[in-house]
Parts: sequence; structure tokens; C-alpha cells
Amino acid sequence: MKHFTQFENISLAEQLIEQALQYKIDSRKHISKGLGKRVGCIFLNPSLRTRASTQIAALNLGMEPIIINMDKEGWALEMQEGAVMNKTTVEHIKDAAAVLGTYFDVLAIRAFPTLTNKDEDIEDFVLNQFKKYANVPIISLESAIRHPLQSLADMITIQENSKAIKKPKVVLTWAPHIKAIPHAVANSFAEWAVGCGHDLTITHPEGYDLDPQFTQGAVIELDQKKALKNADFVYVKNWSAFNDYGKIHSTDSSWMLTESHFENAPEAKVMHCLPVRRNVELSDEILDGPRSLVQKQAENRIFAAQAVLSKIII
Amino acid sequence: MKHFTQFENISLAEQLIEQALQYKIDSRKHISKGLGKRVGCIFLNPSLRTRASTQIAALNLGMEPIIINMDKEGWALEMQEGAVMNKTTVEHIKDAAAVLGTYFDVLAIRAFPTLTNKDEDIEDFVLNQFKKYANVPIISLESAIRHPLQSLADMITIQENSKAIKKPKVVLTWAPHIKAIPHAVANSFAEWAVGCGHDLTITHPEGYDLDPQFTQGAVIELDQKKALKNADFVYVKNWSAFNDYGKIHSTDSSWMLTESHFENAPEAKVMHCLPVRRNVELSDEILDGPRSLVQKQAENRIFAAQAVLSKIII
Amino acid sequence: MKHFTQFENISLAEQLIEQALQYKIDSRKHISKGLGKRVGCIFLNPSLRTRASTQIAALNLGMEPIIINMDKEGWALEMQEGAVMNKTTVEHIKDAAAVLGTYFDVLAIRAFPTLTNKDEDIEDFVLNQFKKYANVPIISLESAIRHPLQSLADMITIQENSKAIKKPKVVLTWAPHIKAIPHAVANSFAEWAVGCGHDLTITHPEGYDLDPQFTQGAVIELDQKKALKNADFVYVKNWSAFNDYGKIHSTDSSWMLTESHFENAPEAKVMHCLPVRRNVELSDEILDGPRSLVQKQAENRIFAAQAVLSKIII
Repeated sequence: MKHFTQFENISLAEQLIEQALQYKIDSRKHISKGLGKRVGCIFLNPSLRTRASTQIAALNLGMEPIIINMDKEGWALEMQEGAVMNKTTVEHIKDAAAVLGTYFDVLAIRAFPTLTNKDEDIEDFVLNQFKKYANVPIISLESAIRHPLQSLADMITIQENSKAIKKPKVVLTWAPHIKAIPHAVANSFAEWAVGCGHDLTITHPEGYDLDPQFTQGAVIELDQKKALKNADFVYVKNWSAFNDYGKIHSTDSSWMLTESHFENAPEAKVMHCLPVRRNVELSDEILDGPRSLVQKQAENRIFAAQAVLSKIII
Repeated sequence: MKHFTQFENISLAEQLIEQALQYKIDSRKHISKGLGKRVGCIFLNPSLRTRASTQIAALNLGMEPIIINMDKEGWALEMQEGAVMNKTTVEHIKDAAAVLGTYFDVLAIRAFPTLTNKDEDIEDFVLNQFKKYANVPIISLESAIRHPLQSLADMITIQENSKAIKKPKVVLTWAPHIKAIPHAVANSFAEWAVGCGHDLTITHPEGYDLDPQFTQGAVIELDQKKALKNADFVYVKNWSAFNDYGKIHSTDSSWMLTESHFENAPEAKVMHCLPVRRNVELSDEILDGPRSLVQKQAENRIFAAQAVLSKIII
Repeated sequence: MKHFTQFENISLAEQLIEQALQYKIDSRKHISKGLGKRVGCIFLNPSLRTRASTQIAALNLGMEPIIINMDKEGWALEMQEGAVMNKTTVEHIKDAAAVLGTYFDVLAIRAFPTLTNKDEDIEDFVLNQFKKYANVPIISLESAIRHPLQSLADMITIQENSKAIKKPKVVLTWAPHIKAIPHAVANSFAEWAVGCGHDLTITHPEGYDLDPQFTQGAVIELDQKKALKNADFVYVKNWSAFNDYGKIHSTDSSWMLTESHFENAPEAKVMHCLPVRRNVELSDEILDGPRSLVQKQAENRIFAAQAVLSKIII
């Protein structure tokens, strides 16, 4: 594994999950493995869990993490090839990426989509510029279209909580939100859930189809009630429209899960990547009740990142 | 000691002072004590001394400090229980606190008061949400109503500079300022000075009474000249009105200490927590002269934090 | 060497270059040298290379670097001696410098010029306040008038790339820009290039003379074409006017280097400190072609900083 930016294959996924679960039991078992190695964590956007868990994962391996808030501490990045830089951007991404590649053994990058320039977002422009120019392994800390460390943590959480279930029914349900939200978490979750062999159903209001490259292999069921039936795990997430790119088509609050939604799925566990807008995306009732796995997902972010870093620095 | 958020009792205070003074002599004597332990330093407000001294204290114990500027790097926090989060806040404090509690062995929190919502400030809402939901020891890096690490450093400084004096006369004097300033430093200083058995007098213009829960045991003397008489230590601090909450009632510059104020207290030392507005709160003459202990207080912040962390991670 | 804020003498420069080149071969050879020592990196302005390379340099010596973004995380600094601080500044630089001096073994400071107050800039006010009050060694991470770590990295890069050339012809050429830019990089480069015995020619449009204290020993040639003839190294940099302080007199794009500028200097290498405004200061053609040394300069920033820290903490 050189980079970690997406789901690759089930064998690698199982290997990472197994390694993560070992680190969960003994987080410092490889404390000397990363000695003298450095990961640069480059943030072009805010972050709480990703920021903290990636640093901790690196420290657990004896690595030195260095955080750079590129958006606030560094220089405004120019993204366009061949640009005449006579406006507000100060440094071209290809120069910044190349320099950071000489400074670090691994680079971890967070770069959200524009949600306005669909073509640039779909080609995952910023992440791929780093891949192209940095010349070191790249880890995605959430890119324009994927959030693979989150999905790996989600797969770990599903495995931990489905010991008796052979092939759990997993439902990804759209939830209301007041802002236009990226597709990365939903895309990645679908990619990983199908890739890991789960039985995935996706439900959302009309007009909210995700990019089909991520949802193939999943059942699409626009009736949320039908979709939720017999669910073992329900992953809740808002996203903006993909076809009518970045637009909000619905804020229908009946899509927000409450206890009454689980009539036909009494044992279902509920997942969310956080941060969550309480009582908009998901009710207090669910988040504070026994169905919620959200804290376990967040905790598993450490061990997901640790497994990935460990595999990369071998 | 689980948390460190306020004065507890004189025996614990003396223990912490003694430990801090030992660390001042040999700062790395317990360099292996904190190995593999992590403190998350969560800032909702600016900080210089607290930020640097807490990191250094942790490193002196072999701990790994991780800084999170929640206000700038993370997500805007919702504070209200049961809120429908359809406005500007992105993450509920109870979710953030719980996640951070799973990531760190100790959490240190800076959260200033609103100075507009008196009820919320008085119950020290943000700090207590962390206490309630994080499930790990909490250290206050200045809360809405207290700044105990500052006060511990102040008590260390008084002890170091009063060897021959049995029960020093300590005066806390209000000073002018141009902005509405929190009560935390003044409250805590009163709480610790009385708690540690010092002879405390508080002086301020009319209308500047502090919350009485912090000042019991102190003499209140509104005549600054009388208050300063025979003082051994004079602690200078501005605060806004408490009763007429958060308001500025006086900017009377005669309250700013100059040499002439020390006619009847020739040996008095002057203290301030910094940052100080020179020639508004306190004159250059005093700050740059031999009475000033402000740099010693700042230095002792390291050893105060180190003693507290050391006690917590036992 | 107590401080590192400017060129001192050729013997010290050669020593630092030699040490840096050794660290480039074996970066962790002195990994125990800085154990228990701390460098505080204080940023009053943005930074990418300086921020990352200084941290890495410190870690390579076993030191603990702590970053403080004073402009964003700390308090607004008052610069004027004797100021009545009743406006927007919260802490006087002399208090902040003294505190930070008690917290760290070495302080590294980034403080750009105002470009409006020439007198304050010329006396390098902020840096010198730290020197005056911090009482520990000071490293400049770029001050109002110099950027010595950049220049040291530049000298290393010239040495590495001029093995067969006895006394390389080095040309510092002004380049267009859309904003008023400080003189620090140009000043320092001239100071170090002459100091290190290089044959330096400086070329710029009329009205762009640098402060003569930095350019003595260099040839000034206003005709860029003549200046570039037979150049071995061409250092490209914009700066604003010095005499008509901080003003932009020219944006003449013919000063931007393209391949056609190298007719009479076919072997010339091109240098720039980064960040670079592509196709404004320097063409893609040059930056992406074989003449460019800009990535090597950036990489050498680590070893320049490491040599300096190493010398200081002996």
C-alpha cells in the first residue's frame, strides 16, 4: 500500500481492520516502529476528530506528527495549472506539495470540495495534486469525494458490534441539514460497506442520488420506512444533491430518525461520523440512547489511522 | 485529586506548592512519569502563558500534549441542552467533550465567560459540560469564573517571596481597564489567598463587589489608600461589575498604581497575572521597577501546571 | 554564536554550511544533543517552509519545538515603549518577550515589517525587543529587514550546485509582483552572497535600490540583460521601493524571467525562496524546467535551521 485514499480490496480492508483491533487492545505495541519518521498533517479545512486521532495514531507508533493549518497559518493556495497568479492566491499547490513532500515521510491531507466546481471536485483535484507532486505516500483526511479513514473506522465499528450476524443489513439514510454538505462520507461509506461484503441499502429523497461509481452493489430504496426494515446498522448522513450539484432539494424533517422509525428494526444500531447537528440530522433521543454507536466510531478513528500509518511506513 | 478546577483545601494546596517548588529545582525529575499519557489542551479563547506553560509542564513529565484551538481549528460548539441545531453551531459540546475524553488521559480546557449570560457563566457551564461528559480528569485553563492554575502560581510566588513573613498582608486591588473583563482571576485569587491562610484585603470602587462566594474571609475596604497600608503583596487586576453583570462602572485612573501609592507600604511587592495593559492597569514605573513579581508569576505557571498534572496522573 | 539574526563573518558561515551538509547526509546524528531543550517558534505572520523546517530541525536534534501563532492564538502586541495601552493592543512586547524567554532555551521569531513605518522597520524593532528582553538566544525566522535562515539555505544550495566553479557569478534580479513586498529576502541574500565571497550583481528597475547597507560589495546594473550575462545563479525576488518606502513603482512584466532571458547565460540556475507567484514573478517554463533550484533551496531550509540550532545549544 503506497497511498491511502480509497477502498482498494477486501483483503487489504480486512488486514487493516484486524491490525486496528490489535492496536485497540495494545495501542503502543509498535511504539518503536515509526521512530524518526514524520507525518505532516495538512489541513485546508477545520477538523476535530481527524486532527486529534491522526496525531495520536502517529504518536502511538513513535512517529512525529506536525500539523499545518494551511488555510490559516500558511499561504492561500492556487489550484489551477498554468495560472497567472496576479490575484489572491500566494502559492501554487504544486510548489507547496513538492516542498512538503521533501519535509515529510508521509503526508496526510484534508481538502473539502468546493461544491460549486463539480468537475474539479469529482477529479479530487487537491488530493491528486499532492499525489502527483509530493512524491511520498499520501493519506486522505477527507478529500472532495472520499473520507476513507472515517469509513475504515466505521467498518471496524460494524465488525465489533455484529459478532453474531453473518452479513449485517446496513442502511445508509440521508438526513436533513440546513447547509449544503459534501458527499465524501456517504460516498466512502457506500464504497467500503459494499467492498467489505455488507448488505447495503441506501435511502434518500428524490434528487439525492449519489455518484453511481460509489453506490454500485447497493440497493437504492427511496422509501425510508421500507429501507429501514430489519436493519442491523443505520448510518445517518446528510449530503447535498449530486446531479444538481451542491444544491439543497429537501429539508424534510420526517427524514430525521427518532425511536418511532425503528418499529421494524428493533435491534438496529445507529451510526454517524460526527459532528452531528442534533435534532436536525438526528434526534437527541437516538444520540443519547442505547442505539448510538457514534462515540465508538469516533474512538475507532485512532486505531484506523494507526493501522493505516503502520502499513504505510513498513 | 480527580479534577483541578478550583481550590479544594489547604493541605492539597500546600502539597501542590511544595511539589511545584521541587520541579522548579529539577524540572525533569519525573520525566518518565507521564510516558504514554496524553493531555489535550482545548482552547476556546486566546492564550499565551497558559498555552506554553501547560505544554512545557506536560513535556517535563514525559507526557504528550496536543493543542486544539477549538474556536479556530474545530467546529463552533452548541452549548444548550436539547437545542435544535439549525443555526451557526456545528457540534454539541456534549459530543465534543465525550469524543475528546476517549482520546486523552487528561483534558485541559480554557473557556471564558460570555459576560452577558450571567446564569450560564456562574454555573461554569462549559467547564462543567466537559466534567460531565468527558469522563477523564479535567484541568481548568481558566473558566468562566476561576483561573486556578494562575492562582496556584500566585501562591507559589507569594511563598517564595515572603520567607520571613508569617502571615503576609495581601491586597487585591481593582485597576482601570477599557474593556469589560472577566472575574475569573480575581475570584480565584481571593479563593486561594483566603484558603491558604493569607490576610486578604480587597479594594475596589463602589459597584465592583465580586461574587461573595469567592470573597468570604477577606476584608473589603473601598478606600484604596487604607487598603494598601502595610501591604506585603499587592495583586492588581481589573474586573467588570458582577452585580450589574459585565458592565464598566469606572475607569478612574487614580486607581492605577504608581510609586506614590506605596507611601505606607514601602516593601510591598506587586503582582499581576499578565497580559497587562501598561499605563492603564499598572504603570511602567511599577512594572519595570523592583516591586514587580509579574515575571516570576509567569515562570511559576510552568511548575504549577506540572505539579497539577503530576498529581492527576499518579 | 549567541543569536542568529544576520550574517556575521565568512568563517562562521562556512562552518554552518559544512555542518548543514553533514546533517543532510545524516539528519539524526546529533539526536541526543538537544534533549531537554526547547525552542519556542513565535509567529507574528504566516509561514509554511519556515514553520515546518524549523520544527523538523529541532526534532532532528532531539529538541522540543513549540509553535505559538502570536497573531492568532495569543494577544495583540503593543510595540511602543511607554505606550498608554488604551486601544486595541493587549500585551506589551517587552512583557511577552520576557515571559517567553523564561519558558524556552531558544526563541525563534517571525516578524514582518509594516512597510509603512520605515524607521521602525529599519531598526528591526520587534526582533530587537525580543533580543533585549528575552534573555535567551534569538533566531530570526524572517524579520523586518533580514531572512538569514533562507540566505543560509541559499548559500548551501549554491555551494552544492557550483562544485566546478571557483567564484560563481550570482545575480539578484527584481521581479514583478502585484503587492508591496518586504525587502528582507533580498537584503539578506545580498548580505550573505557578498559575505560568502560570491561575485554578486543586483539588477532592478529604477527606483528599486535596496538599503545600501546590504548591497555594498555588489555590482548594481539596471539593465537586466547585461546583468544576466554569464550568470551561474539567478536569484529572483520582488521587493517594494525602499527610498519611496513600501511603494510599487513598476509591474513591468518584461522583468519576469522566461527561457529567452537566458540567451547569454545558458547554464544559469534559477533560485527563489518561495512562495512564488507563478507567471507573475517567474514563469512556469523556468520553475518547471531544469534550471530551477527552488525545491532544493526549500529542502535545505531544514539543514540550515538544524546547523543554527545545533551551534546555539552547544
